[in-house]
Order: sequence, then C-alpha cells, then structure tokens
Amino acid sequence: MSKLVECIPNFSVSKERDPAVFQGLVDTANSVPGCTVLDVQTDGDHNRCVFTMVGSPAAVEEVSFQLAKKAAETIDMTRHTGQHPRMGSTDVIPFVPTMDMTVEECVALSRRVAERIWKELGIPSFLYEDSAATPERRNLAACRKGQFEGMPEKLLQPEWAPDYGERKIHPTAGITAIGARMPLIAYNINLDTSDLEIANKIARAIRAANGGFKYCKAIGVMLEERNIAQVSMNLVNYEGTPIYYVFEMVRALADRYGVRITGSELVGLTPGKAMLDCAEYYLKLEGFDARKQVMEYHLIGME
Amino acid sequence: MSKLVECIPNFSVSKERDPAVFQGLVDTANSVPGCTVLDVQTDGDHNRCVFTMVGSPAAVEEVSFQLAKKAAETIDMTRHTGQHPRMGSTDVIPFVPTMDMTVEECVALSRRVAERIWKELGIPSFLYEDSAATPERRNLAACRKGQFEGMPEKLLQPEWAPDYGERKIHPTAGITAIGARMPLIAYNINLDTSDLEIANKIARAIRAANGGFKYCKAIGVMLEERNIAQVSMNLVNYEGTPIYYVFEMVRALADRYGVRITGSELVGLTPGKAMLDCAEYYLKLEGFDARKQVMEYHLIGME
Repeated sequence: MSKLVECIPNFSVSKERDPAVFQGLVDTANSVPGCTVLDVQTDGDHNRCVFTMVGSPAAVEEVSFQLAKKAAETIDMTRHTGQHPRMGSTDVIPFVPTMDMTVEECVALSRRVAERIWKELGIPSFLYEDSAATPERRNLAACRKGQFEGMPEKLLQPEWAPDYGERKIHPTAGITAIGARMPLIAYNINLDTSDLEIANKIARAIRAANGGFKYCKAIGVMLEERNIAQVSMNLVNYEGTPIYYVFEMVRALADRYGVRITGSELVGLTPGKAMLDCAEYYLKLEGFDARKQVMEYHLIGME
Repeated sequence: MSKLVECIPNFSVSKERDPAVFQGLVDTANSVPGCTVLDVQTDGDHNRCVFTMVGSPAAVEEVSFQLAKKAAETIDMTRHTGQHPRMGSTDVIPFVPTMDMTVEECVALSRRVAERIWKELGIPSFLYEDSAATPERRNLAACRKGQFEGMPEKLLQPEWAPDYGERKIHPTAGITAIGARMPLIAYNINLDTSDLEIANKIARAIRAANGGFKYCKAIGVMLEERNIAQVSMNLVNYEGTPIYYVFEMVRALADRYGVRITGSELVGLTPGKAMLDCAEYYLKLEGFDARKQVMEYHLIGME
C-alpha cells in the first residue's frame, strides 16, 4: 500500500497579472517533501491559477494548508478582478483519491484541512462534492453563487452558514470550497451522422439528469469541421459508471437510429484504472487484480 | 522521459540449499541506488533463484554486473545439482524494456553487460532472444542445451562460439545467456466446451508455429476441475501481437465450432500498456496517448 492523493487547488491570482505572488505559491507548492507538482495552469483573463499535485495524504494535507496560508497572506480579494467566478484567495481545494485511497479517506482529509484553515487562518469554508453535508452543497457553482462580493450577505441566509467558521468571510481571503471527489473523466463518442438531434437524444438517454447513468453528464455537440455529431460526456465516478457502460449504451442507442460509433476520445488525464476496467470487461477477464498484476503499479513510489 | 528497464536474472543457487550465498545475492541486488528489487523467487528442488528488478538503465547495468560478479565468487558450478537446466552460476540475464525504452536500447545494454562480464570476470556468454546474432541463438533452450557439464565440448563446435569470450567456459561460473526481450504475457482463454480438440485446433490456428500470429505460442489444455477446455498462450511481444488480436481470433474460430468464450485470465505480471491497448481498441479511441494521458505514468519515478 502506498496511498496517493491528488489535490487541484485553484487560486485567485495569475502569473500574467501578478508574477511575484504567483511564484510565491509555486515555491510553496514545491516546499513539502512527499508531494509533487505535476502541472501548473495560469490564465491572465481569468486571473486565476490551478495546481495539480500528487503525494502522500500527510504531505498533501500539509501543502494544501500552506498554500491556503500563502494565498491569504499575498492575495487581496477586495482588489481581485477576473472573468472566472471566485469567492476566495484560495477559491477551491478538491482532493481526489489516486492510489490505495478511498473517497471516504479524502472526505476526512478535506475536513481536517477545512478545520485547520478556519482555526489558524480564520478563513471559513463550504464542504462540497462528496464532502458536502447537503445535496445542494455538492455543487461548486451553487456554493460560489454570489461570488466574493455577494458572500457576506449570502452567509447570513439560514441555509448558507459555512461548514467551518462563522457567518462572515475573511476580509481579504474570502471563503473557500473544500471537498473530496472522484477523478473526472472527459469522454466523447463520435457518430457517423451529421444529425445533431440524434446525439442529443442519446445524450439525454444516458445522462443522470434524465434517468440515465448516475455518474454521467452528457450533451450532444456538433463537430463542425468533421461534420459529425458527438455525444460529449463527463464521467464523474468511473467506478459507479464505467466508460464501457456508456460506450455500450451509446452503441445500442445509436443502432436504433441506424448510426454507428466511428470513434471516441479521452480529453486530458484519465485514471489508468478506468481504462484497465474496460480491458477487463471486453476481454472477459477472470480473477484479475490490477493493483497486483499490472507492472506499472509496482513502479509507483519506487525510489 | 524516465527510462526504466526490468532485469530478471536467474542464479544457480537457492535459499533452501545455501542460504548464505543466496543472501549475498539479495544484498548485492539491493546495493545499487536507482534499482529496486520487486520480487525474489527461490526453489530448492531447482536449486535456483530468480530476481525481478526494475530501475534506470545505468543502475540496472551496474547491478546486473555486480550480481554476476557475486555469483561467480560464491557459486561453484562443478558442485551444483538441481532439476532445472543450467549452464552458469549466473544462468541467464534478460533485460526487458519497461518505460520510455526500446528493445534496441536493451540490446545495446545487454551487449555492454556481456562484454564487461567477459573482460572483468572472464565469463563467456551467449547473446539470446532479441540480442541474438543468429535465429537459433534466440532460443534460450538451444543455447543451454548440454548444460554446464556438456558446455566445454559444445563450445568447440563451429557454430557455438560464445558471442563474448573464448571457446571455453569459466571453470566454476560456466557461461551465461544474456539478452533483451519484450515482456512475456501469459494469457489464457476459456471455452464453454469440454472438447479439448477444439482448444487444440484453435491453438494451432493462432500460433506462430503453424502460421498464426508471429508472437503467439499456444496450446490447448483441459481444466479438469471445471471440465472446460482452454487455449493457453504466451504472448512474447504485445506490440506485434496485441492481446485483442488473439482474443478476437479465438472468438471467431470458436464460433465456427459453435463454442463461446466464457472468460480469460492473465497469469502473473502484465505491462499495463498491453491492457491499455485493448481498451483503446474496444473503445475505438482516437488520438489517445497513454504516456501523457494516463495519470499513473506521471506517478512513476515521482519522489
């Protein structure tokens, strides 16, 4: 067992507009042994940056607090402008189970970080996604509605007390959303039709909102250049709704309209396990234990 | 890029019969930074042990030499007995590309190790598998035929000069087979028939020996307990002959006999890439780059 957790904190600053503050966060992100920064994105228009980090639970717990501390010390939300909605200097901190970890362990981790950020920094927080206490708080957009400027008023509404902290924001750091979630898989399936309505019908059939798969969000989109329709999906829990569920269901539904799947695509990073599950399904594997049998897992955390 | 190579050297000693010598090899295997011992197998009847190690090419090159040196210093082949065929204190050293490495790079590595073992230890070697200079030397069993005791005579035959060293064995360490090869995947497909002949017919159709897939070895076997026939395979190059090739071909051939695939199994370790290739095939993925898009690859070699 070598537990690994991913953390993808979002901060209300950009390299483009405030390089010194941005660099301070980069240095802080790299300051804790046992946690590695895989990626840093910065956007001047959004005036926002996003870190992708992976490490041991203890290291990630420490670095996420240190980042929130650094952000509170160096970012003044009363002066922040940018196109992206935001409510705090540290806007959101998601924790994602990556290896030998459960979502429940990430929920516990998120609570500890939220508590420490309140006690030591005086920054309140909403617990969102799988850490949420109520269904409506699962949704980040719902938590963030009103943004930094509207938050003082919002926190006085009966249903919007912070999960940690009092009913008022930190004067310059605002409020933060903190939570655990499964990795998100952005997955699209291409159809050999230029009829967008077919893709829309399939999307409606497979998505949770209309009675389809619980962890599937889907819309139909038109790929203008290729003149084909696509079912574009977010799979928010690949253990509950595996990739091959949606692939096989889209195939079955497309068949009804005389349409075929020409291809599919994964956008960005995906957990290898989600793909191994597909190989296991299609090869009808018996007694397969990915964690033990797949060589690459033995190389992770190797010195 | 973080190049990794696997090395699975076999030594003519066992923990059961000679624990001190065995332990000396274990200590040597663990003595080089950058190389990790994943597994050690020992068998008293075979009087043989097998190490599975992974590391950077430089570290693996060094440790494989140090192990051969230690084995030469502590194992006397003139006194060795055991059920497993063998010809040297270090019997065989395979190098397997594991990440960001080609077989060609492993071939070059195997040559450097063979040269050093000859120059510094006076132990000759045959280059086998993908390092072999002639087709017949690819086969380890052909190289080892005659074993330690018959090797002095064999080396005098025109076609059996060692690739490195002179036409005589090291007096106590014998001769070693050294070479690069792709990882071997042990893969079996179960059929819903108790007719072994059907499994045998399918095995003959798909294996290289009878005109089937170039990198597939296959036989039919009876699973007595379950009373079903199985196509049992070794896939010796999953890039040339992917798992889904044999799965789909077995499915098509079984169909001819009115038989279905009920399941399949992977035995032991498998490269994750071989399974990702299956997911990519069945999901009809477009533009998929496993090395970049699969999270786990970013965790390998992480501090």
